[in-house]
Amino acid sequence: MKVAVIGANGKIGQHLVEQLQNDDKHKVVAVVRKQEQKQSWEEKGVEARLADLEGSVDDLQTALNGADAVVFTAGSGAGTGDDKTLLVDLDGAVKTVEAAENIGAKRFIMVSAWQANNRENWAEQLLPYYAAKHYADKELMLSSLNWTIVRPGALTDDPASGKVVVGESLAPGSVPREDVANVLFRCLDESGTEHKAFDLMSGDSDVQQSLQAMKELA
Amino acid sequence: MKVAVIGANGKIGQHLVEQLQNDDKHKVVAVVRKQEQKQSWEEKGVEARLADLEGSVDDLQTALNGADAVVFTAGSGAGTGDDKTLLVDLDGAVKTVEAAENIGAKRFIMVSAWQANNRENWAEQLLPYYAAKHYADKELMLSSLNWTIVRPGALTDDPASGKVVVGESLAPGSVPREDVANVLFRCLDESGTEHKAFDLMSGDSDVQQSLQAMKELA
Repeated sequence: MKVAVIGANGKIGQHLVEQLQNDDKHKVVAVVRKQEQKQSWEEKGVEARLADLEGSVDDLQTALNGADAVVFTAGSGAGTGDDKTLLVDLDGAVKTVEAAENIGAKRFIMVSAWQANNRENWAEQLLPYYAAKHYADKELMLSSLNWTIVRPGALTDDPASGKVVVGESLAPGSVPREDVANVLFRCLDESGTEHKAFDLMSGDSDVQQSLQAMKELA
Repeated sequence: MKVAVIGANGKIGQHLVEQLQNDDKHKVVAVVRKQEQKQSWEEKGVEARLADLEGSVDDLQTALNGADAVVFTAGSGAGTGDDKTLLVDLDGAVKTVEAAENIGAKRFIMVSAWQANNRENWAEQLLPYYAAKHYADKELMLSSLNWTIVRPGALTDDPASGKVVVGESLAPGSVPREDVANVLFRCLDESGTEHKAFDLMSGDSDVQQSLQAMKELA
């Protein structure tokens, strides 16, 4: 299975690409925005391609070409304006969904945000970001892809604990980026996690138990 | 038929409310954001209600209560940031759609923007606005409502010419706000204009001919 990681230079993306690179069952393509990022991955022996989420669907198709699965873990970031929230976190994500459909990728995993599906729980200071993620997730759910939507809580740089919890509506909390990457990695091949959307936090279950819990969600 | 006009204090909204008020077949509710706007409509004998598009769906339902039809002609305006583009033009519009469904309004007319359905034609300096309108329109099309999506070109304050053109993909152009209001007014009751989305410009046809042209769209 060839996996394209959109936002490979983000911290979740880096963990995920490294796991995929070290795994015999997967090929990975690190999709990044800048030439120096591409070169950096290539120096580590990882196939890397350039893509601009503000560009055309055609260009995104070129970047995804040959991928069986796509993981979207890109974000416009806290340092940019809400124009980029609309154009990257929403429209960029949806263009990636369209590109994945067009090239025949079957699997799509979206990194969303805790309770993006539920306006009542959107953090006041992050309303535009939550709205963007909400509508991107909705568009993905309407696509023809085998989607999974992972909605992590506050992201930390702590090392993976290996202990998480998933659920349709969890209390607020946090989770290390490395644990998120582990969950994404394990979801890719795990039959029964398609067409599931869930919050993800640090918790008491190992990842294998959490995959089972995902499958039991509505 | 009772028609709720969201954004009644905008220039298109004002023309439309006045037409509805002068017409025996309709009752109108002017939905506005500020108390002074509400009072101003009431002084003209128009029923007016307050609603905040950044508020809850519940509050919007209260504002729409009893309406058979909803016309959405609100906008965050050029003077606000892209946070409001996301929260008003997109999420506010979708919350209005949800509220209309919840109260059992059957008809919904959206004032969109020329070619909002087609990324290739989005004006570079207005990309966030176009993205917001695009996804709001898509959500409306997925609703259970009898929708019509009107996508006017550049809006002018010229008096109505009575001459317009509609089409799935028109060349760029302009159209007086008063002509747009006339088209909205006439669409409300015209059977066969439901589930149609079209560009609207100044043109060579009278409104009656344009209604026919709408019905012939895919």
